[in-house]
Amino acid sequence: MSIPETVQLSNAQVDHVGIVVHDLDDALATYCDVLGFSLLERHHAPDHGVEIAFLDAGRSTIELLSPTDKESGTARFLARRGEGSHHVCFAVPNIAQALDELRAQGVRLIDETPRQGIHGLVAFLHPQAAHGVMIELLQKDQPHRLE
Amino acid sequence: MSIPETVQLSNAQVDHVGIVVHDLDDALATYCDVLGFSLLERHHAPDHGVEIAFLDAGRSTIELLSPTDKESGTARFLARRGEGSHHVCFAVPNIAQALDELRAQGVRLIDETPRQGIHGLVAFLHPQAAHGVMIELLQKDQPHRLE
Repeated sequence: MSIPETVQLSNAQVDHVGIVVHDLDDALATYCDVLGFSLLERHHAPDHGVEIAFLDAGRSTIELLSPTDKESGTARFLARRGEGSHHVCFAVPNIAQALDELRAQGVRLIDETPRQGIHGLVAFLHPQAAHGVMIELLQKDQPHRLE
Repeated sequence: MSIPETVQLSNAQVDHVGIVVHDLDDALATYCDVLGFSLLERHHAPDHGVEIAFLDAGRSTIELLSPTDKESGTARFLARRGEGSHHVCFAVPNIAQALDELRAQGVRLIDETPRQGIHGLVAFLHPQAAHGVMIELLQKDQPHRLE
């Protein structure tokens, strides 16, 4: 098998930083009212047991997420590590190709196939693949910024 | 005291994501050789007891940092929390003004005054100010991207 010339995440861009918090209203009060960020969107994703808010951060966004289901992965993360950074999301043009290339490199994946997220197809890499950082890949299906 | 119309971080942009690792060469092998990111710069900052690498991430960068001094704050963070996300950096046009506005909001700061970093003046907010995330502010003194 030949090695592709453009590999894995070389064209990826940081899309947002994910921060897990106990209470979304409380965190929004801090991030918006105190720190001065602007709320872009707020979602409840019951299938994943989380509430989510996206804040404007220039070309990127901050995602605050808070578990609504004690059995969700997000709830277990929060119980284990406390509030703080949860994942880093990179936008890629073709998520299926990116996963194929990463799999060929032996990268440990959480999601073997892309699944539908709020802003497009998403897949998570295992934190062991990136020195403790949970990387999310996103193939956007529409822009979520008002421009 | 009147409240300023443009406040705090409302014009901030995510500049980079900081990820603390045990061994920089080992992490660069993962991030560049396996995941496919490109190395932009590598620095040794003995005053802060860390080695640092910046990787291209489109409009943003990933910063990998690894302690070289066991007494440094970075080393204590790594011992306490393990490898993973360390801070999120936002570029702001005027760091002194941003710190004044944040201080007026009662935000807990690590750095009361800006200090010289690799790419400009920097100051850290205390993680308690942002739900467990250590936010870095950066007033860039020159672009660090080849464009």
